Amino acid sequence: MTTKYKEIETRQKLSRVIEELSDERNLKTVVFSGSSGMCMPSMAVLKEIINLARSVLFPGYFEEKTLSAYDRKYHIGVAIERLHSLLRDQVLAGMCFAECECEDLGELEKKADEIATTFLERLPEMRETLASDVVASYNGDPAAKSYGEVIFCYPVMKALTNYRVAHELLLLGVPIIPRFISEMAHSETGIDIHPGAKIGKSFTIDHGTGTVIGETAVIGNNVKIYQGVTLGAKSFPLDDNGNPIKGIPRHPHLEDDIIVYSNASILGNITIGRGSIIGGNTWIDYDVPAGSRIFKR
Amino acid sequence: MTTKYKEIETRQKLSRVIEELSDERNLKTVVFSGSSGMCMPSMAVLKEIINLARSVLFPGYFEEKTLSAYDRKYHIGVAIERLHSLLRDQVLAGMCFAECECEDLGELEKKADEIATTFLERLPEMRETLASDVVASYNGDPAAKSYGEVIFCYPVMKALTNYRVAHELLLLGVPIIPRFISEMAHSETGIDIHPGAKIGKSFTIDHGTGTVIGETAVIGNNVKIYQGVTLGAKSFPLDDNGNPIKGIPRHPHLEDDIIVYSNASILGNITIGRGSIIGGNTWIDYDVPAGSRIFKR
Amino acid sequence: MTTKYKEIETRQKLSRVIEELSDERNLKTVVFSGSSGMCMPSMAVLKEIINLARSVLFPGYFEEKTLSAYDRKYHIGVAIERLHSLLRDQVLAGMCFAECECEDLGELEKKADEIATTFLERLPEMRETLASDVVASYNGDPAAKSYGEVIFCYPVMKALTNYRVAHELLLLGVPIIPRFISEMAHSETGIDIHPGAKIGKSFTIDHGTGTVIGETAVIGNNVKIYQGVTLGAKSFPLDDNGNPIKGIPRHPHLEDDIIVYSNASILGNITIGRGSIIGGNTWIDYDVPAGSRIFKR
Amino acid sequence: MTTKYKEIETRQKLSRVIEELSDERNLKTVVFSGSSGMCMPSMAVLKEIINLARSVLFPGYFEEKTLSAYDRKYHIGVAIERLHSLLRDQVLAGMCFAECECEDLGELEKKADEIATTFLERLPEMRETLASDVVASYNGDPAAKSYGEVIFCYPVMKALTNYRVAHELLLLGVPIIPRFISEMAHSETGIDIHPGAKIGKSFTIDHGTGTVIGETAVIGNNVKIYQGVTLGAKSFPLDDNGNPIKGIPRHPHLEDDIIVYSNASILGNITIGRGSIIGGNTWIDYDVPAGSRIFKR
Amino acid sequence: MTTKYKEIETRQKLSRVIEELSDERNLKTVVFSGSSGMCMPSMAVLKEIINLARSVLFPGYFEEKTLSAYDRKYHIGVAIERLHSLLRDQVLAGMCFAECECEDLGELEKKADEIATTFLERLPEMRETLASDVVASYNGDPAAKSYGEVIFCYPVMKALTNYRVAHELLLLGVPIIPRFISEMAHSETGIDIHPGAKIGKSFTIDHGTGTVIGETAVIGNNVKIYQGVTLGAKSFPLDDNGNPIKGIPRHPHLEDDIIVYSNASILGNITIGRGSIIGGNTWIDYDVPAGSRIFKR
Amino acid sequence: MTTKYKEIETRQKLSRVIEELSDERNLKTVVFSGSSGMCMPSMAVLKEIINLARSVLFPGYFEEKTLSAYDRKYHIGVAIERLHSLLRDQVLAGMCFAECECEDLGELEKKADEIATTFLERLPEMRETLASDVVASYNGDPAAKSYGEVIFCYPVMKALTNYRVAHELLLLGVPIIPRFISEMAHSETGIDIHPGAKIGKSFTIDHGTGTVIGETAVIGNNVKIYQGVTLGAKSFPLDDNGNPIKGIPRHPHLEDDIIVYSNASILGNITIGRGSIIGGNTWIDYDVPAGSRIFKR
Repeated sequence: MTTKYKEIETRQKLSRVIEELSDERNLKTVVFSGSSGMCMPSMAVLKEIINLARSVLFPGYFEEKTLSAYDRKYHIGVAIERLHSLLRDQVLAGMCFAECECEDLGELEKKADEIATTFLERLPEMRETLASDVVASYNGDPAAKSYGEVIFCYPVMKALTNYRVAHELLLLGVPIIPRFISEMAHSETGIDIHPGAKIGKSFTIDHGTGTVIGETAVIGNNVKIYQGVTLGAKSFPLDDNGNPIKGIPRHPHLEDDIIVYSNASILGNITIGRGSIIGGNTWIDYDVPAGSRIFKR
Repeated sequence: MTTKYKEIETRQKLSRVIEELSDERNLKTVVFSGSSGMCMPSMAVLKEIINLARSVLFPGYFEEKTLSAYDRKYHIGVAIERLHSLLRDQVLAGMCFAECECEDLGELEKKADEIATTFLERLPEMRETLASDVVASYNGDPAAKSYGEVIFCYPVMKALTNYRVAHELLLLGVPIIPRFISEMAHSETGIDIHPGAKIGKSFTIDHGTGTVIGETAVIGNNVKIYQGVTLGAKSFPLDDNGNPIKGIPRHPHLEDDIIVYSNASILGNITIGRGSIIGGNTWIDYDVPAGSRIFKR
Repeated sequence: MTTKYKEIETRQKLSRVIEELSDERNLKTVVFSGSSGMCMPSMAVLKEIINLARSVLFPGYFEEKTLSAYDRKYHIGVAIERLHSLLRDQVLAGMCFAECECEDLGELEKKADEIATTFLERLPEMRETLASDVVASYNGDPAAKSYGEVIFCYPVMKALTNYRVAHELLLLGVPIIPRFISEMAHSETGIDIHPGAKIGKSFTIDHGTGTVIGETAVIGNNVKIYQGVTLGAKSFPLDDNGNPIKGIPRHPHLEDDIIVYSNASILGNITIGRGSIIGGNTWIDYDVPAGSRIFKR
Repeated sequence: MTTKYKEIETRQKLSRVIEELSDERNLKTVVFSGSSGMCMPSMAVLKEIINLARSVLFPGYFEEKTLSAYDRKYHIGVAIERLHSLLRDQVLAGMCFAECECEDLGELEKKADEIATTFLERLPEMRETLASDVVASYNGDPAAKSYGEVIFCYPVMKALTNYRVAHELLLLGVPIIPRFISEMAHSETGIDIHPGAKIGKSFTIDHGTGTVIGETAVIGNNVKIYQGVTLGAKSFPLDDNGNPIKGIPRHPHLEDDIIVYSNASILGNITIGRGSIIGGNTWIDYDVPAGSRIFKR
Repeated sequence: MTTKYKEIETRQKLSRVIEELSDERNLKTVVFSGSSGMCMPSMAVLKEIINLARSVLFPGYFEEKTLSAYDRKYHIGVAIERLHSLLRDQVLAGMCFAECECEDLGELEKKADEIATTFLERLPEMRETLASDVVASYNGDPAAKSYGEVIFCYPVMKALTNYRVAHELLLLGVPIIPRFISEMAHSETGIDIHPGAKIGKSFTIDHGTGTVIGETAVIGNNVKIYQGVTLGAKSFPLDDNGNPIKGIPRHPHLEDDIIVYSNASILGNITIGRGSIIGGNTWIDYDVPAGSRIFKR
Repeated sequence: MTTKYKEIETRQKLSRVIEELSDERNLKTVVFSGSSGMCMPSMAVLKEIINLARSVLFPGYFEEKTLSAYDRKYHIGVAIERLHSLLRDQVLAGMCFAECECEDLGELEKKADEIATTFLERLPEMRETLASDVVASYNGDPAAKSYGEVIFCYPVMKALTNYRVAHELLLLGVPIIPRFISEMAHSETGIDIHPGAKIGKSFTIDHGTGTVIGETAVIGNNVKIYQGVTLGAKSFPLDDNGNPIKGIPRHPHLEDDIIVYSNASILGNITIGRGSIIGGNTWIDYDVPAGSRIFKR
């Protein structure tokens, strides 16, 4: 394809690139420095975990063929067993990624196994919450034809399933994996819900592209928001180096029964009172009393 | 990995989870309740359908190797045959999903076959419309280097191909599948066009992330919109339970020759007159006469 | 499935569709007209290229198992060799797509080989720049727990890796491929950075959905922007046919040390002075002096 | 890759090849002439069917991870349901392949469904027989370390599982599929058992490459044979055209408790009496009384 | 998983293994020494080539769904085009493997392209020969139910398709690839036909496991052989080093209308006269006159 | 597809089948009874292991593209690392399969890690032996064109690579895996070499289908055998139940410099003296002195 001489010159250039890229001095910041030989968290496996979770939470919708009542339990049984096994391995991978005290691997494995079990025990409750989200999405959208359409097609259901799974894992102390799961939904739906946010029942988001819900946001029951809505931070207290201090509450609290229309920005550690309606394209960085109606102009 | 005793305890916990998740009482809202043994609509197959449609609408662009004129017809022939077969099965799956009168499966199969055939007969016309969209996208974007770049790379072409396919299927009475196809484009491009919307020729969307076009929107010929534009509903008449009434016109009508700049919100069953330009970040919930220029500030 | 007669009628209809779709008269605008028998650019291969680039830029993060220092060089060596081979083929495919003088294929192959080599020689420098972006993202986000989380999970790192790869390829004169690579990131992250834009070190985007950075935008060092920000064109000089003239500078220039909050629109060939802060939802189409603070209302 | 002129000449040559190969006159004997649009039997699906059958007949051996007693039933449940669905479709495909009266497709589908169900009802009995084969193989081979090794590694178990599945399907009147299943085992193991043969319990074949058991062979219980053994036909009555007449018994009958050593040829519609031992490399084309010992020279 | 010290010791041992295995001194005989950067012949691609050849030679049998006469030509057209492209690349890979004068790659590419075209032009004739083999197999086996069963299931048809493809490629001067293709059939069927053998029309092999047909064998029309038959060499003239001299005729010539029963060994450069029947387990190393009947004992 | 009533009846029948197949009483002999939750040995992984071993033993032959000397070491490095990881897991799976004392999993894991390392340290010596086999195969076959053809195409090299890998693992005390690896080669090539056999250098098998080499066979250097040769047991001492006693030497010993022609059967714990030639189709069950020539009749 190239003359022999050219070929040799190219190989020598590539060898130099390989040397440079492998040089320890060029690796700080960018290299993974944890113990070697451990599994990394795997996007493919996390996708399978989410799909399995979806298939047991909404039985029949995500199978190749529709199930009879006779078959349902077998499917759920196999899925739960596989979920347990895959989740345990990913929780362990997350712990190693975050360099949890890896000295005693056996101890970590036991902890990962327990976390996976506890997570699965919470699935029935998670299903109940997600069912309330389905009803809210159906009721709130004149274009929705059935619960089935909402479960099967609506991006909000993908985003909320991932969020509710990720949030439970975060509560159980699992590192990195929850964030990864919420970014998977962010990528698919354009809805960016940090797994640290607290969200009540009967929640829905219409369209959803560009919606952001920050790490310390708190949302009550029966809240509906639209595309492009930001529940964000306004400004961060800085440390001595001029960088934001981590872990301080900095996002809004939305009480029950609230609607926020498209592209509204609600910023800072403020409270929107129960029953309020926030109009589209608004910019809210102050507390809003219950029952308010705030529109542009 | 765990002691024998621990292992047994875990299995018992998982067994209880399986029981709970299979319990009929916990299944309402979330379970698919259609006939058993039928194929569910399949995302993988619908992706293949879209890819096949793209390959016959834009011959040569989506093949592994460039085609000679000699080979083109063979490729189109094989693709159309496969499209017909896959589409018929998905149309049938959609009908079963929506619990169309499934009693006489043979009747449904015949109907699905006819719909697939009719859809394919409309492809030449769909190609003509999409060709006008390509030209509009090329002319409207100084960064576009060729028609080929638009066809091959531009998210608007993915979104419009899916929309035009989904809209035809909706007109033919196919349930669920059209919505699914438009959500596939929504996920890939951030452009959310409801398959029920009516869109004329020479339409284009630049960038597109966050653009929303609602179910009852009507758009004329030669319209261009930008990222973040909402053609949405403003408010819904509520029924006695306080839920929106379904199926009422509630989105804007854009006449011919209109430009809408980024993040504008055009809301409600209003009309934007021919030849108008709507500036970015504007909020329009009223009729706008032909030839208007509306900008923020 | 259908009676024999019906079956024959269907086949005849499909044959007519195939004829129409293959008819030369219906193919203009939509058909790929380059030489036949050449490879088209391949999304699957470009994805593998990006994944390989990521694996050598951030060693250990994107492997199945964590690497020991002993293994790292072997992995980088194999990845660089494969990158070279795949990239050379895609560069060639891009050249054929754009109908570069294809007469002498051998000449094009040699050029593609050289471009692939030169690109790889720039990887160490690209890694340095991306490392500065990692630090900026970590410092700028109170929710970030470690550099590792930023590298592994943050959509901004996907978008910037693709952008920096695409930009280098554009500088090396590769057609179509750079745009394709940036659209891959756009689809995954909702962040739309044109490969032609010039972006300095220590750049970051928070959340990112809906962010648009145009072809002729120039961004200095240490700049941070948020979701929904547009660095766009305002209006285009038109040619005699009323279409925009291609290739004219039409996007903003952001100097060093600037923050732009969510959904701000900065439009036209203007300059935002060093150290400025642009508030959310603002609309800027004029030069802004250094050190400005511009907020809505 | 070739000059333009050369390229065109090549395409013209290929076009002529395509014409010739599509010409009806050249298609007799070699073209499949059944109804169009029906599924053909699928090797990939038949492999999955065999693997599923294996997984329920020998629970735990062919799963990714070892099962607990708790999980076993869920796995068997899911496998049986999938087996039923896949098998029904393949039985139907076999019927269409053999051009069973396809006029009323609904009738055929019902028949295929019933055959699949009846087949599955025979699995417990098939398992019992295969268990006796496992014991016979273990007892008969000094190199065998455990039942598990026999089940997991021995080619004879693959060959017998396929044979016993294929034989049941043949008894149920399924065309083509049984032969296909036995050829799958023939290809994998070199053991060629026609699905029409009748084979008792506790049967085993050591090594097995080159073993042939013909269509009308009958084998009692507790028989062991070695590699290269032929239970074949000797000569066929010819019809008026000089071709063999189909469907006449022409293979040997082996009674209970017989051993046949390697490369023995036992030919024709003869009987080998109970308890006989047939030595290696022998050539037997005559009845052999019970308790015989026949060795070469 | 192991203590840190252990881990390091293991990595050091593996590093030594890598050094040893990469050491030039240990590489002679076992290393591929051709030009670098060229594609190696690919088993996966050769499998696809054989499958494509099969699908055009026996239209309809190896498609997913049965074809209508309307669709057949499209399928053959697409398959021929792909066959041409894949075959050209594999012929080129074979030439590079055999270190054909690789100096001028462009010249080799042109030659490979011509060989692929010429091969395809011979397909109609190959089909005719294979059709005669189908008829011979059907007529010769009382267990065969239809031509379709022979084409679809019989190992002899796999072996002969591969042989006839490989033989044509050998005649066209393609190195290594023909042998590889015949070994693929050998592995699948246990039938080992060297691509150099010359075989007439209406040939068939029953069962076939263990059948061997050597490089310089010549077989007339209307010949039938059984499993375990060897058409082999008897002894080879040795060169001065005591190794066999290559390329000398050393296998039997079978004239027309011959039957050879199972496990017969026919050895050396001898002739079996027209119309002979050779019995099972015989050992023939001498010329046999026309019309002979040779049986054991 | 079937009426509602029929459907229910079918589901009930299948439920009964599931019950029966899950019933503990029907599971003895056929169920895997080891600890739950452990990985089973995996055919897919063992195939990858063999392919990796082949790629480091014969560098360049089994890569997608030919390697330069520059790249070779990187490829070997990555392959060795992956081999170590995969092999360790399969060795562990083999131990669990054989129910090695599984109480202390950590101990087993350490042992598996050590075995994998020791195995890899033996690769350079295995390569030397296999190189001698390549030379022997090339020299012994007039049809062989080059060492490369032997390495790339000859079934004997597949069989011997698998055998030599399996034999080393057996020597290291690994259960089940060695047998599985040799059965993989048996299935692919028809050559059945028990991993327990001892085979010297410069060994080759021509054609090979049907060749059997038993567990306690011993073969010297420079031995060549042909297809269908059996080095088998003659009779087994029986235990009190009439079953063969396991683990007693019962296969032949072939000294150096021996040729055995096709279909010869050499049976029992006998010795074939150095330099002997054993003719085809012979039956040898007695010691043969050095330098013998034994032919049929």
